[in-house]
Amino acid sequence: MSKSNISVGLLGWGTVGTGVSKILSGRSDFISQHAGVELRLAKIAKRTLPAFRDGVDIPDGCLTTDPSEVVDNPEIDIVVELIGGVTDSRNLIGKAIRNGKHVVTANKALLAEHGRELFRLADENRVSLNFEASTAGGIPIIKTLRESFAANRIQSLYGIINGTCNFILSQMHEGDVDFEVVLKEAQAKGYAEADPTLDIEGHDAAQKLLLLTALAYGLNAPSDHLHVEGITKITQQDIQYARELGYVIKLLAIGKLNSADRVEIRVHPTLLPTQSLLANVGGAFNAVCVIGDAVGPTLFYGQGAGEMPTASAVVADIIDAGKAISGERGARVSHAWQTDAKPDVSLCPIDDVETRYYVRLVVQDKPGVLAQISSVLGAHRISIASVIQKERYETDETASLVIVTHIATEKNMQFAMKEIDALNVVTGESQLIRIEEEVAF
Amino acid sequence: MSKSNISVGLLGWGTVGTGVSKILSGRSDFISQHAGVELRLAKIAKRTLPAFRDGVDIPDGCLTTDPSEVVDNPEIDIVVELIGGVTDSRNLIGKAIRNGKHVVTANKALLAEHGRELFRLADENRVSLNFEASTAGGIPIIKTLRESFAANRIQSLYGIINGTCNFILSQMHEGDVDFEVVLKEAQAKGYAEADPTLDIEGHDAAQKLLLLTALAYGLNAPSDHLHVEGITKITQQDIQYARELGYVIKLLAIGKLNSADRVEIRVHPTLLPTQSLLANVGGAFNAVCVIGDAVGPTLFYGQGAGEMPTASAVVADIIDAGKAISGERGARVSHAWQTDAKPDVSLCPIDDVETRYYVRLVVQDKPGVLAQISSVLGAHRISIASVIQKERYETDETASLVIVTHIATEKNMQFAMKEIDALNVVTGESQLIRIEEEVAF
Repeated sequence: MSKSNISVGLLGWGTVGTGVSKILSGRSDFISQHAGVELRLAKIAKRTLPAFRDGVDIPDGCLTTDPSEVVDNPEIDIVVELIGGVTDSRNLIGKAIRNGKHVVTANKALLAEHGRELFRLADENRVSLNFEASTAGGIPIIKTLRESFAANRIQSLYGIINGTCNFILSQMHEGDVDFEVVLKEAQAKGYAEADPTLDIEGHDAAQKLLLLTALAYGLNAPSDHLHVEGITKITQQDIQYARELGYVIKLLAIGKLNSADRVEIRVHPTLLPTQSLLANVGGAFNAVCVIGDAVGPTLFYGQGAGEMPTASAVVADIIDAGKAISGERGARVSHAWQTDAKPDVSLCPIDDVETRYYVRLVVQDKPGVLAQISSVLGAHRISIASVIQKERYETDETASLVIVTHIATEKNMQFAMKEIDALNVVTGESQLIRIEEEVAF
Repeated sequence: MSKSNISVGLLGWGTVGTGVSKILSGRSDFISQHAGVELRLAKIAKRTLPAFRDGVDIPDGCLTTDPSEVVDNPEIDIVVELIGGVTDSRNLIGKAIRNGKHVVTANKALLAEHGRELFRLADENRVSLNFEASTAGGIPIIKTLRESFAANRIQSLYGIINGTCNFILSQMHEGDVDFEVVLKEAQAKGYAEADPTLDIEGHDAAQKLLLLTALAYGLNAPSDHLHVEGITKITQQDIQYARELGYVIKLLAIGKLNSADRVEIRVHPTLLPTQSLLANVGGAFNAVCVIGDAVGPTLFYGQGAGEMPTASAVVADIIDAGKAISGERGARVSHAWQTDAKPDVSLCPIDDVETRYYVRLVVQDKPGVLAQISSVLGAHRISIASVIQKERYETDETASLVIVTHIATEKNMQFAMKEIDALNVVTGESQLIRIEEEVAF
């Protein structure tokens, strides 16, 4: 029933590539028996060749430094791109597709930037371009949005989709430690890169969110239209105030269809109710909460990175492509990007977003301060839900004032913050963190 | 690109059928645009015809009392079976398949009993037999096990897959109320059937578990080989002792590959660590935790029943079948049942299961009781991890003795319990509940 020996070629043989080659070299019988597809690892292209990889049994002649031995090789049916970056990967994937090969990639940056072009090319050439491993590796969220929830209007999705940030914030919640200290620990443990900018500034989460919202809303937003904030300014003080107020701080990637049929796409630190399932996703784990109008609230939890979880997703994509080759499933993959139809929703600018806010101010410890600040908020039609003002404990005559607002628009809040920061009584840097209550299940 | 007007016929028009007809009649443009499949609701067969259904726009001539107008109708491409039961449904699905129609069903009882026969028939006739809605409706666990985790050996799966039981146990945890009281409340709210036996005795969960373990392990266990216990004997006392020990009681459906490559398949009340994600799945929600050897631990959460969540899963299956018809995806669906290959694992009898136990005994309140009981446990090589013996508060000279054991085999535990129950000092009915610590994420 299955095409024998569907040949797979890898571009790149780093962490994920090693995991993929372990599965393909060690488990082809299992996959053939359970999924009905016979896969053969035929070629691995890598810039500089390592002598061997632990736990991988590679056939002679399998390794090469020349990627064209993969993408131009007539024997190869499926090309797996794991080299990252957006230039070489784009060219090689383009070439592979034009050569009629099905492609699997884990490259979120490439798809966020050139997805539309590549999916169209795949469609024209009747091949699959699968990308489950690009977002939250161990969680099959791409397939779920694309297939399982196809009958739903997605009302909102909330993702913890950057393991580095979640590890750092979880550690900050567990111990009385500051961001810089935990970041160093995360780097030592391999949970954070030597240059962690992409992760901690929220850009990695933003690239993944763009893929999710493209699937959920058919919306191809340019990446510079997103509102993206990282976690570098979150202090231990914020963590503790949040806890006192019944919240946990997480870096959330949010896609939300609001009442005006506009889609909010944003990444920022967020206060979540302590009791919510998302708030309890700790360590380097990922989770995505999707609320569909038919299916209701759902949540998916798993590892977002790492050799084997990501390889598991890549091989599932290879198997799907293998089924397309053996006629068991077709090649069209990603209607969201392929359609030229105008989506029935538009992007909501961050200024128009409505939410509740946590505001932490450093103020002079003297009478009348709260009155001044609340009158600024009132003038911008922002009402206060609760206030924490602790007795002074710092030596410099300042105090912390924490305010939780009712729902306000971002534009009003930003105007108010500008005025508040200009007050003489406000002496230090202010903190503003958005609150999401909706995910309280 | 898509075949126009793929025609769908429904067998049954109850709660789920109404939801499906709402989506098909009200959202065909949306589905065509987002999934590339044009679906048309062509026929609905129902034993007695209602005049209309709120929110559903049914074309003239769509309703019939004759199911053969669906299964023998040459115009119909996809038959959706929602009548339940195992006799008529089996005959009608068989007829539809032989007529070359793709079939979607939510009928877990039918598949648990006749799945092998029906999947083979579907395979011979090259049509799909999709069944996502059969298990944990809102959670795409069938597709995940079959496709997304195809590269994994599933180490274990733990499911809260009966909403009625989860609602009852959650209520018992929230208030100081007994099983019978909550059951009545659940019946009044529509969370439990007038005859709740199938749910509260664990049989509904067992049928669903059989589908999950067939997919995960390729094992078609006869339903009477499973160990199935319901929740009717769980008392408020057990709930409170469990909480004191750091556990929550849930009805769990468990499939687990043990170290001897044997699969444990069992449904029973289970003590779960309070901090675990599964322990925090409340109300009528479902959740399934799957641990794969590559992907690691994962968890899926959503509504398990109800009109629209279940309809969402049914329509996703219809769309998949529609893609098979338009050549965009093939028809083979369920390798696990279709293969004649012997699975590489076998069923583990309950006697050989190893786990920790919670034991609650009603004993005479006098010296030497604990010594007698612990010596019986010791004789069966069961060691005690902790004990709670409260001062007597009952008026009848008895006390409660709660023991948590270290890991023991079921066979030893059952022998020990027989001896303990025969002791003169044990005066009331004993309680034995298994503990699972592994899902503590």
